[in-house]
This record gives sequence, structure tokens and C-alpha cells, in this order.
Amino acid sequence: METAADAGEEELSPPRSSLVLDDDEDVEEVEDEGGNLKEPLLEHHPINLRRHAPNNTSQLAIVGSNLCPIESLDYELIENDLFNQDWRSRGRAAILWYVFLKWTFCLFIGIVAGAVGFFNNLAVENVAGYKFVTVSDLMLANKYWTAFWVFAGSNLALLLFATVITAFVSTAAGGSGIPEVKAYLNGVDAPDIFSLRTLVVKIVGMIAAVSSSLHVGKAGPMVHIGACIGAIVGQGGSRKYGMTCRWLRYFKNDRDRRDLVTCGAAAGVAAAFRAPVGGVLFALESLSSWWRSALIWRAFFTTAVVAVTLRTLIDICERGKCGLFGKGGLIMYDVTSDTITYHIADLPPVILLGVIGGILGSLYNFLMLKVLRVCSLVNEKGRAYRLLLAATVSIFISCCLFGLPWLAPCRPCLKEDCPSIGHSGSFKNFQCPPKHYNDLASLFFNTNDDTIRKLYSSETNDDFQKSSIMLSFVASYVLGILSYGVAAPFGLFVPIILTGASYGRLIGMLMGANSNLDHGLFAVLGSASFLGGTMRMTVSVCVIILELTNNLLLLPLVMLVLLISKTVADSFNPNIYDLILKLKGLPYLEDHAEPYMRQLTVTDVVTGPLRTFNGVEKVGNIVHILKTTGHHAFPVIDEPPFSSSPVLYGLILRAHLLSLLKKKRFLPTCTLSGFDASKQFVADDFAKRGSGKHDRIEDIEVTAEEMEMYIDLHPFTNTSPYTVVETMSLAKALILFRQVGLRHLLIVPKSSCRAPVVGILTRHDFMPEHILGLHPFLVKSRWKRLRFHKSTLTRFFRTSLMWACS
Amino acid sequence: METAADAGEEELSPPRSSLVLDDDEDVEEVEDEGGNLKEPLLEHHPINLRRHAPNNTSQLAIVGSNLCPIESLDYELIENDLFNQDWRSRGRAAILWYVFLKWTFCLFIGIVAGAVGFFNNLAVENVAGYKFVTVSDLMLANKYWTAFWVFAGSNLALLLFATVITAFVSTAAGGSGIPEVKAYLNGVDAPDIFSLRTLVVKIVGMIAAVSSSLHVGKAGPMVHIGACIGAIVGQGGSRKYGMTCRWLRYFKNDRDRRDLVTCGAAAGVAAAFRAPVGGVLFALESLSSWWRSALIWRAFFTTAVVAVTLRTLIDICERGKCGLFGKGGLIMYDVTSDTITYHIADLPPVILLGVIGGILGSLYNFLMLKVLRVCSLVNEKGRAYRLLLAATVSIFISCCLFGLPWLAPCRPCLKEDCPSIGHSGSFKNFQCPPKHYNDLASLFFNTNDDTIRKLYSSETNDDFQKSSIMLSFVASYVLGILSYGVAAPFGLFVPIILTGASYGRLIGMLMGANSNLDHGLFAVLGSASFLGGTMRMTVSVCVIILELTNNLLLLPLVMLVLLISKTVADSFNPNIYDLILKLKGLPYLEDHAEPYMRQLTVTDVVTGPLRTFNGVEKVGNIVHILKTTGHHAFPVIDEPPFSSSPVLYGLILRAHLLSLLKKKRFLPTCTLSGFDASKQFVADDFAKRGSGKHDRIEDIEVTAEEMEMYIDLHPFTNTSPYTVVETMSLAKALILFRQVGLRHLLIVPKSSCRAPVVGILTRHDFMPEHILGLHPFLVKSRWKRLRFHKSTLTRFFRTSLMWACS
Repeated sequence: METAADAGEEELSPPRSSLVLDDDEDVEEVEDEGGNLKEPLLEHHPINLRRHAPNNTSQLAIVGSNLCPIESLDYELIENDLFNQDWRSRGRAAILWYVFLKWTFCLFIGIVAGAVGFFNNLAVENVAGYKFVTVSDLMLANKYWTAFWVFAGSNLALLLFATVITAFVSTAAGGSGIPEVKAYLNGVDAPDIFSLRTLVVKIVGMIAAVSSSLHVGKAGPMVHIGACIGAIVGQGGSRKYGMTCRWLRYFKNDRDRRDLVTCGAAAGVAAAFRAPVGGVLFALESLSSWWRSALIWRAFFTTAVVAVTLRTLIDICERGKCGLFGKGGLIMYDVTSDTITYHIADLPPVILLGVIGGILGSLYNFLMLKVLRVCSLVNEKGRAYRLLLAATVSIFISCCLFGLPWLAPCRPCLKEDCPSIGHSGSFKNFQCPPKHYNDLASLFFNTNDDTIRKLYSSETNDDFQKSSIMLSFVASYVLGILSYGVAAPFGLFVPIILTGASYGRLIGMLMGANSNLDHGLFAVLGSASFLGGTMRMTVSVCVIILELTNNLLLLPLVMLVLLISKTVADSFNPNIYDLILKLKGLPYLEDHAEPYMRQLTVTDVVTGPLRTFNGVEKVGNIVHILKTTGHHAFPVIDEPPFSSSPVLYGLILRAHLLSLLKKKRFLPTCTLSGFDASKQFVADDFAKRGSGKHDRIEDIEVTAEEMEMYIDLHPFTNTSPYTVVETMSLAKALILFRQVGLRHLLIVPKSSCRAPVVGILTRHDFMPEHILGLHPFLVKSRWKRLRFHKSTLTRFFRTSLMWACS
Repeated sequence: METAADAGEEELSPPRSSLVLDDDEDVEEVEDEGGNLKEPLLEHHPINLRRHAPNNTSQLAIVGSNLCPIESLDYELIENDLFNQDWRSRGRAAILWYVFLKWTFCLFIGIVAGAVGFFNNLAVENVAGYKFVTVSDLMLANKYWTAFWVFAGSNLALLLFATVITAFVSTAAGGSGIPEVKAYLNGVDAPDIFSLRTLVVKIVGMIAAVSSSLHVGKAGPMVHIGACIGAIVGQGGSRKYGMTCRWLRYFKNDRDRRDLVTCGAAAGVAAAFRAPVGGVLFALESLSSWWRSALIWRAFFTTAVVAVTLRTLIDICERGKCGLFGKGGLIMYDVTSDTITYHIADLPPVILLGVIGGILGSLYNFLMLKVLRVCSLVNEKGRAYRLLLAATVSIFISCCLFGLPWLAPCRPCLKEDCPSIGHSGSFKNFQCPPKHYNDLASLFFNTNDDTIRKLYSSETNDDFQKSSIMLSFVASYVLGILSYGVAAPFGLFVPIILTGASYGRLIGMLMGANSNLDHGLFAVLGSASFLGGTMRMTVSVCVIILELTNNLLLLPLVMLVLLISKTVADSFNPNIYDLILKLKGLPYLEDHAEPYMRQLTVTDVVTGPLRTFNGVEKVGNIVHILKTTGHHAFPVIDEPPFSSSPVLYGLILRAHLLSLLKKKRFLPTCTLSGFDASKQFVADDFAKRGSGKHDRIEDIEVTAEEMEMYIDLHPFTNTSPYTVVETMSLAKALILFRQVGLRHLLIVPKSSCRAPVVGILTRHDFMPEHILGLHPFLVKSRWKRLRFHKSTLTRFFRTSLMWACS
């Protein structure tokens, strides 16, 4: 079989800027960087050879805490005859039923996500609460060493439990899961991230990890949990457990699953922060790559259901008994203070807060990346190493948390409920005499949520000393970064809020009489600046903070501080999730093209030999090609005698070919089948199966006799593949690929009388690593994004650190 | 010159579903609706003739209040050699400067929008305030007839002034402007909507119209004003006034203008409601058709600037003297009541509120459309008729507002500041004796903002009587719809909020002891339900209401009521802006394909003969084709001797051809120019000019000698046009067209050895009117969107009305 690639080979060099067309002779090998800047980039670089080199970008990525193979998702409408007939046969009732089911799924996702969010909080409050109560009681009895062993022991046990179930049951549950969800919504599918097993491990492991006094949060995992619920619902039942239904087949495609996963992720955020609007905005701003107005509406419905569910459950808890679950149950720092006023004079400290927050935030990202790199080296060595790492981190943190408060002096109690004894309260006695409290211990020996609420409270300017807040800030900054290296399920949001809150209070204290703002307000603004500096979200963080603090008067200040910290931090490095995405090797498709992509055409990056099929193809050929290549789609070309000249009929997916081979309805001769495909096949046979589940060519046995038979591919070929002409610039092809959500993009020739397809672009062909690998001179070129060079950044931080330490 | 269309003619009938390819003989003319539903739609309908009929969808639309020609915008990157060279020649400094300028523009837009928003409020408060004070004083002196004449006279004068300046200075300023802004962001450009003249008329006219006691608001015009400021800033200076700058040329394209207009629109909403987050969300949910994460961030910055500007100006006003501008200055119903509590038992009335709100809202849309249709017939007849209509409406409304309060009985004053005398306050004495007030007059004889604040206030359950609220609801429902027919600048938002608030209070009163909720809360929820029922926005309305009322505790109830009212109303008709868009005839491109589009291919809808140019084309040909067609882009095909076979080189824009003809750098013979285009032309010559400004072929004079010369089109041709293969389904082509934001989409053949282009799709080819005109049998087919049939709706409302009136 002749491939289209061979036919198109002689015209590959891009003649876009050479005015004499079809003229390749005047190619020179000049690589001078200082040459005429107006010259096109590629004219001097003959790169015809690349066709013989396949795309070597990695098809593996770190998912959760293990290296896994990844695949792309297909958000394109597959329009082949079989599907079209199936679609046309749907009556009005079927469509109404589909709409109804989708809304019901959203309702279900909202209820379950709300319930899980509530349960998580309940469990953490109780597990961590009893631990702190026990330790406090032992301290009151002056049994300091026993208290330490109980504290460190229970922390160790909890964290090891979380690490063990992550390592042995579902490695995909490790980490926050936000990068994986973000990648999924961008079109990267990793096996097992949305399985039931992952869901259970994520919930249980997160409760244990968060209760183990690690500086970690539960918001990130809630996003993953929400998305997981959405994906499981969208799976369209389970054949394994016989839970299928005819109606569910309409959901067996990546588009509907994407919608449900988006709603699930929004529900997760809403449940974590009790912030329904913030949840929608978070999903919109930070997670999803495609968005429709209708999806906002659906996500909003889901988060509204979450809000109602949470409220109902909390109402129930307030009446009955939920252990130590009190008003601290959900992260909701309801610190309404109607007296908050501020004037123009208050702006300078707020601006300062934003600037420093931005710098500290980008430094946080930078250090986090270093730690993650080191820890992933350790984690890759095996499960024993993971446990060892977890144990080391846990013991170190326990020592810090237990040791540091001894440095803080005791302070006499001025308020009621001080020190709090027998329940998980705010003021801790620690080593102090009765009627005294240790302010640092009060910050350390509480759940993160209680600590944040404490820091946010207004009219508590005198509750803490400068040194304690300083220590608390340094500890949470360092321990937050350290904690995230452990391979267990937890998130980043809460530690960042906590670190920001102590940083904000510190600035407030250092301001002293120069500012009239309340220190609680400073803490809120500090959190905002830190979130802006690390996560770089704006509208969603703003709304989440407003919903958390329940105080709309803060809005202008929060906006200001977010704007400043994001601007400052953006000039150093990208946001933390993008850094982690890159570290994990997930092929995330950015929504903007790199500047050099405007200088390349699609033919400059497409690699590997193209494999095509005839409209009626020999089974042997199909099996051979499926076995020898890893491609997921093949162009179908009608050649004589089926047409007068070669005609591009469409694109057929590997999954559909495998289904055809499994069904074994082969034709004895090379003719059109001539019968109605819908009588032999149902659309459900070709429905996209859930994440990570697909047939493999090795599992299909085809006899030698069958190898000589034929398949008519026409009814199964997507007749509407998206295409670009070979002279299309890479930047514009990327816009198409990303905006429409494609998995494959066909390249067609610009001129007549050539093979009708020149190549196929996939996600990996747009990856900068791939492009820069093909065209190494681009690495040095000035066509890269504007950002402080990495070494500049390293140097800056190193100098600052040296200066700070000296 | 042979056109590609002729060459492609014989293969136009779509062979997608007929298994025997290239076989057109078995076409039958069967139109049975009850046939096999699995059959493809078009096989029985030979439609090859359409190539000879041009697309005759209207290129005119009602913009503001006049019929204007409209054009499409081009959000595609034009990548021709000249632009690419210009782009490559930009240094790092130029790029940084561009980024800096864009942010500065946003800052500027924010400051100006904030200042204009403040000024509008100040003006309305003073003009309307003095009017009401004068009328009240006359009433106190028992000069009832004089009071009426003053009231009606000033209303008439104000409205006539607004109508006159709209009719004589800028008709584009009529109406709210939101449909026009929405269409602009969708890619429809109407002349004059963003001119300086329109801006001034909009501001002045809106102040006059709102002060004239019409039931109209200032939020819609603020959106238009904000967008206008954005567009004027993004115009890239003005050649007419010599205000150009080399740097501004980077903004001379539709993409950057779109960004600035989006930011401007968000700033407008933010200024109108003092709701920065709500502004961003409104622009995102309701206005814009494309959105990037970076744009959220930019819009957020702009609205933050608006918030700061407003706060600063209000601070200044509080210190100095701003006339009657008090706390009622900005629409901000700060009705914080910490005591709001609600339980499951409160849900039924809230759900009822949502359901009725949805029905009333969709009825509002329905009636509004009828009124607009009648009024636009009147308005089309000429300026005199417009003035007459405005006068009639104004007098009728003045009579209603002055007459109805006589029906309300006097009530004794129980609160301080009752009745309010000498300033624009809340309780009006009207015809009552001293120490008494007329509750209906209190609602009518205040600015809308004051009335809404009054209705929203908590603990005012006894201030109003059921009959007064009922009358007020009916009056604002009817007068709101009537008012909108006048051709002057004003919006819909505030009347809808007001109508909803009185409706909500009415429901609250009717509930009586069955509900513990405060009537002020009912009013807020009523507004939400009405906004949900008419405008169908969810997240943005929710956030705007929260920011308006400054009470986050309302969130779950507001969400619930919005969800219900939107769901109910959506089953009747689309949202009000879409209805108005359609009525105005703006070719808005929906983001979802109609179901029947999946059954058509692009060749089924493309019309009109295709005109192409050679790579080196004769001037005479170009002039002839430009004169005889209205196309805005032409494919450029390289034919022998410039290539061995016909090759698609790219797409050239009419505007660029006109620039080339104006420059007159023609070649004497048919050869490649061979020189560097950048030496003869600068990119600025081809920059996209502002809205409505472009050259016309009639204005360019070409001598007979020049007609015989040639132009080398290569350096000016966009070499990366987006393309689809002719077998692409229309639905998928629409997704591409809409997602990428195209103006032209080339159709390429699926087979080799044909002309390299088959046709061009534009926005108008995707319009349902056009498609249904070509394929009339689709009108009756079941492949249309699910929605209650229009006649069903009419019947439903007619029956309800009859029932209500009987």
C-alpha cells in the first residue's frame, strides 16, 4: 500500500516566503543569529529528513505518584454513517430523556460531592480533634514525653496509613489531583485517575493525611473527588458489574464526560470551601480548557445542590451529635466585622503586602518544584522508599510542631474559654501554668481550619506575639513545601491560605501604628496575596475569599492585593499547577501559541510515516498496521476502482477498527459491502469506553484465512475530520486544535494531483519539547515567550537568600 | 478566468451516506415525512442549482434605532508575508511596550468608565431629584394641577430631548446597546456603534431619559458606554484628528479591539452596579462569545480600577457638595440584615416565587417583543413619528404615575423622616394630610434606585399595603414594557429589578403568616426570579445581586430561585437579548449547531459563484471583480506558469486589495515582483481600520493603462486560511467557525485533480434563515431544537390572560 506521505515528500519544504514557488535549490545552511531579523526563520534549515523520525515525545507521565502511559481524549463529534443513523433514529423522547438524565447526573454529583465534603470534614475534625485533645490532656498532666510520643506516633501512623494505601491500592490518588483533572479537561487521559478505587483511596487517605498534622489541605483532593464522581457517573454504567442501561450509551463519549467532570470539579471546590460561586469560577478559570455558556449554567446548578446539601447536613449535625465537629466543621471563616473601614491612606501597606506576597509566592513555587523533583526521585525507587520518606517527613514535622512552641513564652489569659481544655478549641495551655496560654502552640495544635479562623478573627491584635507569628509563618512556609513531597492524597490550598494568613498578620504587626487596619484583615489579605502569588487565579480566588470570610466589604482590597501579587509573581515563574503539570510530564496544550510557532508551518513539525487505509481494506493489512504502529487514527482513502481518483473519505479510529476485527464480519472479496451497517452493528459497539479501558490488537485472534478477507470501512469512517492545508502556520493550527478540542488533525495538500492527505497532527506535535527537538536552533532564538530567564530567577533567589541569611 | 466553482460542480451532491460513491443517478424526489427515519435527510433533494443563487440573507440590521448595513469582524490572524516580516521585526522592547500599552488602556477604560458611571448617577439624582422636590412642594401647597403640569411637562421635555438627540445626532445610541455589544463580540460590526458621537449621545440621552420618570434603567447603556470607551481606545488613534502614534498600530486589528471592548463592557456593568466581580461575570456569561483565561484577568483588572475610582469619587462627594446625590447615588441596596435566617420550611414559597417569576419573565419577553415590533414599525416611518411616539408614551406614563396614587389611602407616619420634605427621600406626602404618607406615591415619586432600596429594606413589612404593591407591580410591569419602545438610550435591567422587587413583596404579603421570611428578602428574591426569567443569566445575576445587597447569606436562596425561574422560562422562549438580537436582524452566530446541521454538509449551503485570483493578477480583473461582487475575501490560486498545477496559495482580503490599488505599485508584465514588499509597503497600510471606516472601490480611480498592468498578490495573501473539506458536516464547520472566530472559511475538495478551492463559507451561510430558505423541507422536519412551539406559547399566554381578566 502506498502511503500518502511518500507521495507528498518532495514538496515538504515550506515555500511560504520564497516568492519562487517549488524551488528548493537555493537553500543555504546559514545559522547566524545576528542576521536579518526580517528573514523567515526556517528558510535556511532543510528539515526534510524528519519524516523518517517518529515523534519521540514521551507518552508517559507521572499520574498521582506513578509513571503511567497516557492517552489523548477526543472531543470531536465522530460523524460516521453508523453513528449518524443511530443519531437520526433517536426520537424526541430519547433526546428529552438524555437532557433529563444529564441534569439528574448533575443533581447526583452535587449531592454526593456535598455529602463527601461534609463527611471528610467530620472525619478530620474528629480524628485530628481527639488527637489534639489527648495530647493536651497529657500536657496538662505534665507528661510531656508521653504527649510527644502520642503526638508523633499518631501522626506517623496516620501518614503511613495514607501512604501505604496510596502506594498499594491506587497510586493515582497521590497528590492533590488538580493537575490531573486540569490535564483531563485539556484532553489528556491517564488510566485509573477516575476509578472507584482511586475515589475511595483519595477520600480515606486524605482524611488520614490531613489528620496527621502535615501542612496539607483538603481542597485539592476534593476537586479530584468531585471530578471522579462526575467521571464515574459519566462512565455510562459498568459492564463488569452488569450495571448497564440502554439510555446510558448516549453518555459514552468524551464530550459528555468532560461536561460532567467539569461540573464535578466545580462541586468539589464548592464543597471544600462552601463557596458555590467560587467553585464555578475556579473550574472555569483554572481547570477547564473549553467552556460553553450552557456549561456555566450546569456547573452552577451542581454547586447550588452542593450548597443545599451541605446546609442540610450541617443543620442535622447541629441538632444531633457529630463528635468534635463544631462550627469549625467546614472551612468557613465567618469573620464578619461590620466595622471594617479603610481609606486611601491604607493603600501603601496593602500594596507592600501584595508585592512581598508575590515574591514569596513565586519563591514558594520555585522551592516546591525543587522539593517535588527530589522527592519524586526518591518515590520512584520503590514503595519502601516512599514509606521511608513519609516517615521521615512526619517525624520531622512532629518534632518541629512539638518543639517550637517551647520557644514561645506563656501569656496570661484575657478571654473566656482560655485555655481550652477537653475540646478542640483555640487557646492551648501547652507547657504553661493554668490561666496562661502558649500562642504558638495555639496555632500549631489545632486543625488548619481552626488556625486560619483564629488568624482571620478581628479584634485579636493582642492575642499573638510578633515572634510567634514569625515562627509560625516560617514553619508553615517550610513545612508546607516539605509535606507536599510525600506520595499521599492531599492538597495545597489550605497550607497556602494558612501561610498567607500568618504572613499577613506578621506584616500587620510590623506595620504597628502605621496602619489602622485590623490584623485579622491583614491575615485575609495575606492569604489573598499568597494565593495570587502561587496559584495566580484572580476572579475565583477573590470570590472564594469573599465567600469564605462572608464579608463583601473586603472586595476592593482583596482585588487590589491579588492583582499586585499575581503581576509580581508572573514575572518570575508560571503558576504552581502549571509547574507541577510540566514536572509530571502531562502534555498540556496551552491556549496560546509560542511566538516561534508563527514562523513554522504544520509540515515543519509533523513526523513519522503516515499510514492510510483503502475504503475497502484487507484484514491482513489492518492487523499488520495496527500491530506495527501505535497510531490511534488512520485516514481512509478511496482509490480506483472505487473512485476515479484518490479521494479522502475520512478518518477511522483504531478503537473502531479493533471493534470491527473483534466482530469478524469480513467480506470475502474486495467489494463494497452493500448492506446496511446498522443491521450488523449497533452504535454501542463503537461507543468510547471509560478511561483506560480499551481493546488491544494483541488480544484479537485472526486466522490466516480471515487475513485474506476484506472489511468495508466506509460506514465506520468519520467523514468530517478537521483538516488544515499543509501551508497552515503552526500557531493557527494550534488555535484550531485547542479551541475545537481535537485529537487528530489531518493535513491536506495545497495543490491538486497529490495524495489527498499529507500527514496527521496530534497533541504531541504541538509540544514545545518536540518542536525544539526537531529544530534545535529555535532554543537559542529570540522567538520565545517573555519571562525572566530561569538562571536569572535562580540567581535572584539565591542572592536574596544569602542576603537574608547573612 | 475559470472559477473553481465551475470545476467542482459535478461532485456537489453529498455522497456521504450513499455507499456507492460517485453515483448520482438514483436520486428520487420523495418528500414523505413518515419515511424511514434512519435515512439521511438530503439524499432525496437534489439541490445542485443553489450555486447559481447568491446568499440573500439580509446584510442589514437595526442598530440602535435605525436600519444599517453590517459587516463581519475578522478575529483570524492574518499571516501574509508583509505582516509576518513586520511581526518578526518587532524587538523585545516593542512587545513589552505593546503589553504595557494594553494594560494602560485597561487602566484608562476603568477610570473613565468609573467616572462616567459616577457622573451619570450624579446627574440623574440631581435632575430627577429636583423634579420630584418641586412637584412635592407644589403638592404640599395643594397646587395639584400645577404639580401635574410641572411633572408631565418636565418628563415630556426630558424624553423629547433624549429622543431628538438620538434621532438627529446618533441613531446608534438608541436602546440599551447590549444586543449590539453582544453582536460585536460575536463578530458583527455595525457602523457608528462605537463612535465618539454615539458615546456622547448615549450619556446625555440616558441621563435625560432616566430622569424623565420612564420605567427605564441605566445599566444597559453603561455596558454600551463601557464598550464604546474600550473601542475608541482600541481604535489606534484617529487619523482625522492627527492623533496617531507608531505604537498604536499594533492595536489596529479586531482581536485586540475585541479584548478592549470586552473589558469595557465589564467595566460598564461594574460601574452601573458597583459590582466588580459581577461585571466580569456578566461580560463572560452574557456578552462575549470567545473567552480566554488571560482576558478574565484583564477584565478583572479593569473592573477593580472601576471599583477604586467609584469609591474615590464617592468619598469626595461625601465631603463636598454633590447636590441631591446622597447614598442613593449608586445603585447599591446595602440592606445588610444579619438576622436573615431561613429553614427547609421556607423553601415552598421560594420555589413558588421562582416558578411564577419564570412564567411572568417569559411573558415579559413575549410582550416586550410584540411592543418592540409595533414601535419599530412606527419608528421606521420617520423622526416625526418617533417624537410623537415618545411624547405619547411620556404623557401616558406621567398620567399613570400621577393618577394612580390617588387610589391609595393615606397612612399615618410611624417613622422618622416621614413624610420627607424638601429632599429626594422615601416617604411622600402627596395628597395626604401632614404626618401621613401615600405609600404608592412613595414608590412612584422617587428615582427607581430609591424605590428599589425601599422595597429591599428589611423590617418594613408594614410600610406598604397589599393593594399599593399590587398596583405598583402592574404599573411597573406594563410601563417597563411600554417605555422600551421609545427610541432613546436606556436599558432594561433596572425596570426588571424594580418589577421583580414589587412582585416579590406582593408574594411575600400574600403568603402572610405562612412564611417567616422578611418582605425585603422576598423583594430581593423576586428581583432574582424576574432577572432569571427574562435575562436568563445565572452566575452573573447571582453575583450582581449579592454585590448589590451586600449580603452573602442570601446566596443559596438566590441560586435556587434563579435556577427555577430560568428553567421555567427557558421552556417558553429564549432570553430577552436573544429575542431583541433576532428582531434587529443581527446575524448572531449561536455556539451550538441546530440539529439539522448535522445532516448537511458544507456544500449543501454554500452559495453564489466563487471568484478567485491568480497569484499575479491583472489590475483590470481585480477592479472588475471588486466592482461586481460584494465579497470580502478571495482565494488566490497559483496556476501555471507559476506552479506545475493549480495550488491554493491563500486568501486575500478586499480591504488589502483596495489598499494595493490605492498605492498603484503595479507591475508591467505578468511576473513575480521579485522585490521585497516591505520596502514598498508598511504593514500599517493594511491595518484594519476602525468600525465602519473603509475604502470603497468606487472611490479609487484606475486608468485604462493601469488596468492592463499586474499586481503580485503573494506578499499580501494570508497563506494560512482555515479550511474544511467539502464533505465536512455543517455542524462541525460551525464549531470551527465560531470557536476560532472566523470571517471566511475555505472549502477544499476531498479528491485530487480538482480546482483547489470549492467555495467560501461566511457567517451568513450558517444562519438558519439561509439554510431553511435553501432547503425548505427542513422547516417542517423534526430536526429542530426542542422548545414549546410558538403558537403553543401564544395560546398559553392568551388563555392565561383571558382567565386573569375574567
